[in-house]
Amino acid sequence: MNYYAAPVARLIEEFSKLPGIGRKTAQRLAFHVLNMREADVVNLSESIVDAKKKIKYCSQCGNMTDIDPCNICRNTQRDKRFICVVEDPRDVVAMEKIREFKGIYHVLHGAISPMDGIGPEEIRIKELLIRLQNDEVEEVILATNSTIEGEATAMYISKLVKPSGIKVTRIAHGIPVGGDLEYADEVTLSKALEGRREI
Amino acid sequence: MNYYAAPVARLIEEFSKLPGIGRKTAQRLAFHVLNMREADVVNLSESIVDAKKKIKYCSQCGNMTDIDPCNICRNTQRDKRFICVVEDPRDVVAMEKIREFKGIYHVLHGAISPMDGIGPEEIRIKELLIRLQNDEVEEVILATNSTIEGEATAMYISKLVKPSGIKVTRIAHGIPVGGDLEYADEVTLSKALEGRREI
Repeated sequence: MNYYAAPVARLIEEFSKLPGIGRKTAQRLAFHVLNMREADVVNLSESIVDAKKKIKYCSQCGNMTDIDPCNICRNTQRDKRFICVVEDPRDVVAMEKIREFKGIYHVLHGAISPMDGIGPEEIRIKELLIRLQNDEVEEVILATNSTIEGEATAMYISKLVKPSGIKVTRIAHGIPVGGDLEYADEVTLSKALEGRREI
Repeated sequence: MNYYAAPVARLIEEFSKLPGIGRKTAQRLAFHVLNMREADVVNLSESIVDAKKKIKYCSQCGNMTDIDPCNICRNTQRDKRFICVVEDPRDVVAMEKIREFKGIYHVLHGAISPMDGIGPEEIRIKELLIRLQNDEVEEVILATNSTIEGEATAMYISKLVKPSGIKVTRIAHGIPVGGDLEYADEVTLSKALEGRREI
């Protein structure tokens, strides 16, 4: 039995499909929408469809963009000699936030994961190799996640790229800044020791 | 500086205006939307505007509805002799869920709260009194919240209605079912004792 008027029930239903939004939160959001000004509601509604319709993947790097090529690929200030390989468009945002990397990106849209049936063909590795043939790339920085899948993907790409003579690097693993040595897990600590540098 | 394409930035912005949705959650939701099928996205978007446009307040009880009078007011099975007075349309849903109350409702849309500048004129008390004059009401059940504002509102309405000879009752306060006596606060415990009944 449904205690809500049909349009409210539908809205609660739609909200509760979103990740991390349970039944109660969906109800709260729905009631909030009903109390919002109509112009704001239209704005919210439009922005949802708009983002979905306008956002495509950059034909060069695979990042999300509303123009093709994306702002990073078309930026002449970016150093095309460095390609940073990441799993997801969100990782591009994370990298951009540190404001230090001036190269360009390559988004794989996933990582190799045989358990989930994702092989090298399912992610954008082929596209990366094509880019490496054509462009004046000097270094490939592998910034896939520090998970089993991310590591496997990094190893796989590294083996494919190395023969071409292009430098392949992996981002460092170690103790997070502000992290306590005491609480670091053994693998992280061992990676931190392994990656030690002279100061 | 914005690291997202404009439509994504706008969507994150809109999501983060919702209650309980912070920046990180808004980002997660936005990326989820981008990965949804287009039909589902349109569905979500439409349901938002749709709910806002179709939902009005019932001209009789003040509950939210897409038809006027609402389903409860127009239901001939409901006992019009009992009016349950609540603060919010959400409270109607809560009451309906117990499936025991067969009367009708009156939604005040708030509670008297001088601190917030909400006096008796700002909530639907006048409408309640008009209903009591016309209808064959025998009992007014005050189910406002058990807060200072809710109690004050209940007291206020009770004083206005009593002279007319209509029975006025207040829902019981006490230990929640499953609640531990040990952890109940003093006020609740004292209310529970005060409201004790012979068994």
